[in-house]
Amino acid sequence: MNITLAQAEKAITAAQEKAKAIDTKMNIAVVDAGANLVAFARMDGAWLGSLDISIKKAKTARFFDMNTGLVGELSQPGGSLYNIEHSNGGLITFPGGIPITNSNGDIIGAIGVSGSSVDNDHAVAEAGAKAL
Amino acid sequence: MNITLAQAEKAITAAQEKAKAIDTKMNIAVVDAGANLVAFARMDGAWLGSLDISIKKAKTARFFDMNTGLVGELSQPGGSLYNIEHSNGGLITFPGGIPITNSNGDIIGAIGVSGSSVDNDHAVAEAGAKAL
Amino acid sequence: MNITLAQAEKAITAAQEKAKAIDTKMNIAVVDAGANLVAFARMDGAWLGSLDISIKKAKTARFFDMNTGLVGELSQPGGSLYNIEHSNGGLITFPGGIPITNSNGDIIGAIGVSGSSVDNDHAVAEAGAKAL
Amino acid sequence: MNITLAQAEKAITAAQEKAKAIDTKMNIAVVDAGANLVAFARMDGAWLGSLDISIKKAKTARFFDMNTGLVGELSQPGGSLYNIEHSNGGLITFPGGIPITNSNGDIIGAIGVSGSSVDNDHAVAEAGAKAL
Repeated sequence: MNITLAQAEKAITAAQEKAKAIDTKMNIAVVDAGANLVAFARMDGAWLGSLDISIKKAKTARFFDMNTGLVGELSQPGGSLYNIEHSNGGLITFPGGIPITNSNGDIIGAIGVSGSSVDNDHAVAEAGAKAL
Repeated sequence: MNITLAQAEKAITAAQEKAKAIDTKMNIAVVDAGANLVAFARMDGAWLGSLDISIKKAKTARFFDMNTGLVGELSQPGGSLYNIEHSNGGLITFPGGIPITNSNGDIIGAIGVSGSSVDNDHAVAEAGAKAL
Repeated sequence: MNITLAQAEKAITAAQEKAKAIDTKMNIAVVDAGANLVAFARMDGAWLGSLDISIKKAKTARFFDMNTGLVGELSQPGGSLYNIEHSNGGLITFPGGIPITNSNGDIIGAIGVSGSSVDNDHAVAEAGAKAL
Repeated sequence: MNITLAQAEKAITAAQEKAKAIDTKMNIAVVDAGANLVAFARMDGAWLGSLDISIKKAKTARFFDMNTGLVGELSQPGGSLYNIEHSNGGLITFPGGIPITNSNGDIIGAIGVSGSSVDNDHAVAEAGAKAL
């Protein structure tokens, strides 16, 4: 059960539309069930540093099958997962990464978005994830 | 004084039984006295991101000959080992890593477990460490 | 003078069409003038190991403003650039990476393709580069 | 279509039996279809440096869906894939890595073996791959 390129591109297109609707410029990455990149788009003028962050958000969401912001809540100083970000070649644990499921509820990949506030990043990722 | 493969596999089998008993899916790693991997098992459906974490927990436990959670208590902001996680290619310092000793009390390796709450991770690691 | 996302996607679409026409499954990456990823697509069933290779080909082509195969000719044992692949976090110096120029002849990015023989990789990259 | 832990352990057990039969000590790694580690065993006294090599062989076999030795034939100086080893965080391209298929012929993972001559490594990997 793996996301297809056509599905990944559909998610990226929907995410881009949302990004434009809220006047932001985003990096958008989609990984498959094995956490490997399937498709990516950097909108013109989007932050360069968000390229790597968007990919790491997508990977992090699939690595733990949850929204990246949830991981971040547990990794604060004193939290049970403090400094989990040092694993897996670097995680990003603030909002903007969301697992993608098929109609059976199976996780088939994840989307990661970076380029604006974390609220905007999450909203754009959600638009992408829900497009399938 | 080094853990054998047979001992490592015995620890992993015991850890898996505990994991099933508490209805979790774990990544389980055992390293030797040199902190090098001896045996590893990823239970079907376990979090992919926990693969690296379980190995890093086992290494961390042997690197400092103590439970990983103890290192984490000392590495909080303001603590004496703040940000020690940046060493050794990345440490994991929350619970789930435990040194393994032989009957003489010599440390012969360590076990690292990841895939659920840190309490569950620690309980499964303990079941593995105590099996020897 | 930088490639736009729309241009990168046009190049990837043209490359995909060529890939299908010659019955191959490709990883296709486009970087900008700064050698940073702009867009990427992994066709269903394409080799997983070609993901990283396609990106490294695109970067290598822009790093030195020439086809990757030309760098490879100079990096053979005894050649003037022997083992240049150790730089820049890893280069790929066999064919499949081509600079992309605008109508003035300025280099605005590069495309990298991997997933088949190097001849096929180069042919697909060329189809993408010429689409602009 | 992904290899299960039970299948991976069966492959490792068969590989170990072959390793003992030809009087060698091996590191044996099995990855899934996403090239992520599922199970690993280092036989007592096996070369420590072969730990990483066995894992990289398994990954390389899945990255390109072929025996690692075939990649190595193409990556010699002057060959079409010269220096491909610089990709994917490091490949190992001599024999000892073999894709694992299910009864339908689908590739569900790969096995990598290191610890002796490449002929022995390949023979042990083959015993593991054929056990399923």
